[in-house]
Amino acid sequence: MKKLKVVTLGGGSSYTPELIEGFIRRYDELPVTDYWLVDIDAGAEKLKIVGELAKRMVKKSGLPMTVHLTTHRNEALFDADFVTTQLRVGQQEARIHDEAIPLKYGVLGQETTGAGGFMKAQRTIPVLLDLCRDMERLCPEAWLINFTNPAGIVTEAIGKYSPIKTLGICSGANNMMMDIAGVYGVERRDVYARVMGLNHLIFADQIAVQGQDVTAEFIEKLAKSAGGSSLKNIPDIGLPPDFIRALGLFPLSYLKYFYLSREMVEHSLQDSKAHGTRGEQTREIERQLFEIYKNPQLESKPKELESRGGAYYSETACSIISSIYNDKKEIHVVNTPNRGATRDLDDESVVETNAMIDRQGAHPLAYGRLPVKIRGLIQSVKAFEELTIEAAVTGDYSTALMALSVHPLIPSVDIAGKILDEYLAVNRPFLPQYKFGKAGEIA
Amino acid sequence: MKKLKVVTLGGGSSYTPELIEGFIRRYDELPVTDYWLVDIDAGAEKLKIVGELAKRMVKKSGLPMTVHLTTHRNEALFDADFVTTQLRVGQQEARIHDEAIPLKYGVLGQETTGAGGFMKAQRTIPVLLDLCRDMERLCPEAWLINFTNPAGIVTEAIGKYSPIKTLGICSGANNMMMDIAGVYGVERRDVYARVMGLNHLIFADQIAVQGQDVTAEFIEKLAKSAGGSSLKNIPDIGLPPDFIRALGLFPLSYLKYFYLSREMVEHSLQDSKAHGTRGEQTREIERQLFEIYKNPQLESKPKELESRGGAYYSETACSIISSIYNDKKEIHVVNTPNRGATRDLDDESVVETNAMIDRQGAHPLAYGRLPVKIRGLIQSVKAFEELTIEAAVTGDYSTALMALSVHPLIPSVDIAGKILDEYLAVNRPFLPQYKFGKAGEIA
Amino acid sequence: MKKLKVVTLGGGSSYTPELIEGFIRRYDELPVTDYWLVDIDAGAEKLKIVGELAKRMVKKSGLPMTVHLTTHRNEALFDADFVTTQLRVGQQEARIHDEAIPLKYGVLGQETTGAGGFMKAQRTIPVLLDLCRDMERLCPEAWLINFTNPAGIVTEAIGKYSPIKTLGICSGANNMMMDIAGVYGVERRDVYARVMGLNHLIFADQIAVQGQDVTAEFIEKLAKSAGGSSLKNIPDIGLPPDFIRALGLFPLSYLKYFYLSREMVEHSLQDSKAHGTRGEQTREIERQLFEIYKNPQLESKPKELESRGGAYYSETACSIISSIYNDKKEIHVVNTPNRGATRDLDDESVVETNAMIDRQGAHPLAYGRLPVKIRGLIQSVKAFEELTIEAAVTGDYSTALMALSVHPLIPSVDIAGKILDEYLAVNRPFLPQYKFGKAGEIA
Amino acid sequence: MKKLKVVTLGGGSSYTPELIEGFIRRYDELPVTDYWLVDIDAGAEKLKIVGELAKRMVKKSGLPMTVHLTTHRNEALFDADFVTTQLRVGQQEARIHDEAIPLKYGVLGQETTGAGGFMKAQRTIPVLLDLCRDMERLCPEAWLINFTNPAGIVTEAIGKYSPIKTLGICSGANNMMMDIAGVYGVERRDVYARVMGLNHLIFADQIAVQGQDVTAEFIEKLAKSAGGSSLKNIPDIGLPPDFIRALGLFPLSYLKYFYLSREMVEHSLQDSKAHGTRGEQTREIERQLFEIYKNPQLESKPKELESRGGAYYSETACSIISSIYNDKKEIHVVNTPNRGATRDLDDESVVETNAMIDRQGAHPLAYGRLPVKIRGLIQSVKAFEELTIEAAVTGDYSTALMALSVHPLIPSVDIAGKILDEYLAVNRPFLPQYKFGKAGEIA
Repeated sequence: MKKLKVVTLGGGSSYTPELIEGFIRRYDELPVTDYWLVDIDAGAEKLKIVGELAKRMVKKSGLPMTVHLTTHRNEALFDADFVTTQLRVGQQEARIHDEAIPLKYGVLGQETTGAGGFMKAQRTIPVLLDLCRDMERLCPEAWLINFTNPAGIVTEAIGKYSPIKTLGICSGANNMMMDIAGVYGVERRDVYARVMGLNHLIFADQIAVQGQDVTAEFIEKLAKSAGGSSLKNIPDIGLPPDFIRALGLFPLSYLKYFYLSREMVEHSLQDSKAHGTRGEQTREIERQLFEIYKNPQLESKPKELESRGGAYYSETACSIISSIYNDKKEIHVVNTPNRGATRDLDDESVVETNAMIDRQGAHPLAYGRLPVKIRGLIQSVKAFEELTIEAAVTGDYSTALMALSVHPLIPSVDIAGKILDEYLAVNRPFLPQYKFGKAGEIA
Repeated sequence: MKKLKVVTLGGGSSYTPELIEGFIRRYDELPVTDYWLVDIDAGAEKLKIVGELAKRMVKKSGLPMTVHLTTHRNEALFDADFVTTQLRVGQQEARIHDEAIPLKYGVLGQETTGAGGFMKAQRTIPVLLDLCRDMERLCPEAWLINFTNPAGIVTEAIGKYSPIKTLGICSGANNMMMDIAGVYGVERRDVYARVMGLNHLIFADQIAVQGQDVTAEFIEKLAKSAGGSSLKNIPDIGLPPDFIRALGLFPLSYLKYFYLSREMVEHSLQDSKAHGTRGEQTREIERQLFEIYKNPQLESKPKELESRGGAYYSETACSIISSIYNDKKEIHVVNTPNRGATRDLDDESVVETNAMIDRQGAHPLAYGRLPVKIRGLIQSVKAFEELTIEAAVTGDYSTALMALSVHPLIPSVDIAGKILDEYLAVNRPFLPQYKFGKAGEIA
Repeated sequence: MKKLKVVTLGGGSSYTPELIEGFIRRYDELPVTDYWLVDIDAGAEKLKIVGELAKRMVKKSGLPMTVHLTTHRNEALFDADFVTTQLRVGQQEARIHDEAIPLKYGVLGQETTGAGGFMKAQRTIPVLLDLCRDMERLCPEAWLINFTNPAGIVTEAIGKYSPIKTLGICSGANNMMMDIAGVYGVERRDVYARVMGLNHLIFADQIAVQGQDVTAEFIEKLAKSAGGSSLKNIPDIGLPPDFIRALGLFPLSYLKYFYLSREMVEHSLQDSKAHGTRGEQTREIERQLFEIYKNPQLESKPKELESRGGAYYSETACSIISSIYNDKKEIHVVNTPNRGATRDLDDESVVETNAMIDRQGAHPLAYGRLPVKIRGLIQSVKAFEELTIEAAVTGDYSTALMALSVHPLIPSVDIAGKILDEYLAVNRPFLPQYKFGKAGEIA
Repeated sequence: MKKLKVVTLGGGSSYTPELIEGFIRRYDELPVTDYWLVDIDAGAEKLKIVGELAKRMVKKSGLPMTVHLTTHRNEALFDADFVTTQLRVGQQEARIHDEAIPLKYGVLGQETTGAGGFMKAQRTIPVLLDLCRDMERLCPEAWLINFTNPAGIVTEAIGKYSPIKTLGICSGANNMMMDIAGVYGVERRDVYARVMGLNHLIFADQIAVQGQDVTAEFIEKLAKSAGGSSLKNIPDIGLPPDFIRALGLFPLSYLKYFYLSREMVEHSLQDSKAHGTRGEQTREIERQLFEIYKNPQLESKPKELESRGGAYYSETACSIISSIYNDKKEIHVVNTPNRGATRDLDDESVVETNAMIDRQGAHPLAYGRLPVKIRGLIQSVKAFEELTIEAAVTGDYSTALMALSVHPLIPSVDIAGKILDEYLAVNRPFLPQYKFGKAGEIA
């Protein structure tokens, strides 16, 4: 039988059972023979815990799939077919800083965009480009399927600096379509939405249920529900009804960080005072998950994992990998270079949009102009992303400062400078690209 | 059972048995209950002959499909779901003029482009826009599937001047993929080619067989075969091997009109002397076909129809109609507005390229920049097409003259003027949009 | 002698002596024979005061220029050559609301952009389009020189909805070049800066003094001075030195509203508590100015006018009008449709940039891509401007809400809605385009 | 006194007296102290003849300008301020081949475009890029003013492959404006035309005389004169009146090569039979000119030079050099990268259009979309130019073949291949970039 080798970097993540379950469920069409979980030395213990659970899950399935655990990345990469990443450089500790430092200045900290997204990108991009260098030698034809946040930024960096074939994946669009399916009481496969934007900043402008366009009707349901009727099954996107009607698009719920930025900062401050930052909360959830994983009787994904977020993450991931592997030419929402999908962004800018997926990769559908209602926001966040990538690659202080300064959620270049200085100080071990002076000062 | 009403304008065409056969073969997925063949009074006799054959074919199939024949277009259009067009305004006589007049001046006459394409567009666009006006009233939600040449130009005109949903269809790309399938000894469905260009002016730049990229290898096969080895199954595109290698793309065979324009004119002149123009030859083939159609024993598409060209035309047409009807989200090559698929053409310019087809229509895949090797040719023919449409709508003499003058196959604006004047004189009955003076002179 | 008729709408403005002085000083090259000051009935008293001063100034000059005062606009427009506008629909009272309402919600109110710019545009655009309708009849060949804020938005609206030839003028870029001249101890004419952006949102990226490029050196001077050295003659743009270096461009000082938005709101709140809003301060300054203007001995522009701002406003205005009148082909910074100057904005979007000015109008210099450092900000403010114009023309509530919601200085769509509702309530008399319900509610 | 050093490569050209005369006439504003004429060894004799004439002309002028003659290029380049080129690699002999070889196949040979332009570019670009390498070392701040044909292609090559500041110059646009001045009986300086296109392929779409737009009126004069009235002073552009009216633009007379390509080939064939190719005719004219130059009594530009063409060439050249030197910010028509002047061409594509010229260089005026009437032709010739440059730099046979194949004046890729093979054979000494095999065959 032909070998099918899949490698997951950051294999010690609490998400791994999600992926394993997905590969087991899809085995008929995606017959993974060798599944390698890789982590760094500091993650060896977690890797062992989650890896043993993975082995028990596979054993129970009775499938001819072998799970390998290693901290030697190159051993895993050799001749791989698919490499997935779910890294967290600096662990939850780094995330806690990412969130807490901006909050001190009344600025949102969030791992997908803004100050937090910037800092996570600075730590992550050098690691992933280093991975690409290894893949270029060891498995140049393999696909790099990137789940690591900020997924859009990271995918753009790889596309700009490596020939490795790559895609960025996020469950956001899939969740939106599941929400729509819920509203109409149909299956997920009966829903199709045209989506455009950047990772965690997407909008659906054409929504079809069983081939019928329901866009206007669905938007009105959203607005009515937000207006207080709070209709059953209608997702709460947290925006005022008049605004929902004016927008006329279905935004990902993360858009509230932009459309209600003042309120969200206030909420984050209160939440963080009451329960710690989101990173601190996640650290505790993870601790509990690993306790559960340790149970040698456990042979399946525990339902507690769902509370961690990303419930349908394996669904998104495995279906896209299968579409590549089987040359299916299905339409999925992925992060991929724009290449003309909209002329309001550069060709090499990564967008999150519908693309036809086959063995040659992702072929985005032409979208045309961005509606003016969302154009400026997308373009200004893309400028932030472009500068963030340049800073992550060059380690240039001025570029980093500009990246933070142009982000629409950072209301002062003076504060941007203060956040940046604190960030660099605490992240120094993870920033080989930045030139620090003797005393830890950026030269 | 839900009604599915399909209407074919130009139903008296010799091609109709192709379409009927296609609808019968695809009945399971595309259950046409009412199929209307419409023609003008002058075509009533042909309509009767081919319509009776159509009825015999349906009867033999045993399917619950009713074939209707009419010369009252509006009766047919009312509440239609799909309207297809295979018109020939002015019949074969007009085509004979289209070809013969330019040939007198040593200029190619051909119904898809150049002088002939221009003239056919002038006669056809007013008729189709008039059809659209009727559809807007009688079946505003119906799809207009246009096979009428010049298919790209006609589709662009409809898109610019009517809200009716439309697609232009040509069997060219499908034939290219069948050629590739033949070379590799695989099924048509195992072949995928990315195609870009204008109708009858397309190039494949990515060719995959069973998901494997074979582009470079296939191009080399083409070149070797053209170089004299004349390999079995390798299509003959009539171009020199060095040029095929330099191009590095698989062009539709019609490209020889552009790449070997001098030789093709010479060939047309000789062929026309020996056998009459292509229109005269076609007229004779058609006469013979209709003799065959008259046979009351005939209950299926006669194989002589294949020699008429367009053998796989129903395959292309029915599979695309089914993809719309069944919201299949398949990828097909169609003529549809560019909408950013390539930024080297305007958004509203119709291109022939791969598009995802669902109930909402055609969504072209983003293509990116046109390769410089083909960019100029495509752009200059598109300029011709844009001026041709403007002339057909306004009937403006200067615009018509410019259209002919900018076409790369017309080597003199002086000759362009002479061809135009002769064209207008013989086509006067079909050109309501042009203002002729007392003596038939353009004012 | 050939007549040269210039008309100023809003002639009763306190700025009028600036303009008069300019026309007197430039008489040799711009021989205005008839200068018409026009105002509405409510401004008749001010018009009389400032008009009499204007007459005294002209009399003193001894030039053959006649000053006409009228409240009948059409009388003035007939056969005019240049029409300038310095309107303030709703007077200083409206401005006070424009500023005070957003400040209540901790949002900047400012007459050039943000909430205040939006509201001023809603009142002003209908009046100016109405003026254009009159000009189309009475002086279709005249130039409309627009000084009315928000100048860029208003100019774009005119360009989109009227064939009248127009330019938007602001003294900002000229002031920047005077600052540069001051730093280098040279004349203003020795300085040239390439400028790009939107009105009150411009950046110089190429600065030359006597033909020598001094850009990098000048930026470093700015940064050093901001860093505390506070060098003599160096303009204070209020930004941190690290940021100035990172930006590498010379921004108009208004950019601090964007780059230090949090601090500027705080400052506005305090200033407004201590001294009233800027509108209230201006109202008092104007009151004092008109007292001075009343003095029948006064025959020249009083120096107190300079404290009102816009000191070099007539310099900018008259030199541009002269460049048109005399077909000079000089380069000036004006507000004019982009037409490809940068492909990061639409062709019809008005930009403020260097343009060659001749009798045919403004011909912007090609600029190329916007630097990524400023691209997102400019694009997002342009989206606001586009929606603001659409709202001003249609009076559509949703479009108005979107305009405010997408502005980078408005941190919440919920607050945007509250500001909008208060704005509409107090501005009702000036908003014929909005449909208010029975109780003054927007329908 | 400050030195001003100007260097002319190809100084032994018969055009040199033109330039000398220009520098003498403009000495007040452009005080050239050192003028170096450089040529290769093979041109030493001509250099001496024309150089001695130059010295006599300067001596007569009494100006403190020193003329230096050398065959050591680097000696001349050191610390130069302006370097002008009027090279002819391979002399008139190469030109004769450039013209004669395509004519054998019934294809136009012409040194500015088509096959001839291609071949001249292949010889010239390597020499000019080599010059740039030397300038980068010896005079990195100098301006390279390129008159060498094909001027647009050569300028684009330099812009793409060297940081040296450059401009391409042609007298075509200036001649068009002189023609207009002649028609209206005004001075050249009273005429302004907006021009766009590629070198030798330009169109004026806005024509003003003393600031008044006369475009439509002037076009009608052209058409009437072409229609047989043959009006006095009206330039003969050789096109039919209907076509001139349809075009609505004033084309450079070279456009007849494109618009009447069949007739022009016929004419070239007859002319070449009767009088030899244009290269042969020029060789004879040059021979006669050098006889005249030898006359030691001759102290000024002989009027016979005007019959050689390029009469106002020094006017164009010196006024542009002066505009740079004196930071004049005048508008001139030059060849310079598009940088957004029109979005129908790439930013780095060289266009010939109006630009503001100052010490920093050429700043093209934004033009907007190319009119559809000329868009396709310009875009297809630009594709030829882009491929021609790539071939000249890489020496790649396939790219060279594509360049010739895509040119609208070459009617067959088969003929393109034959011309290319003959060209490469006779030009081998001048093509270091091409890899020839043992027997002179391209590998």
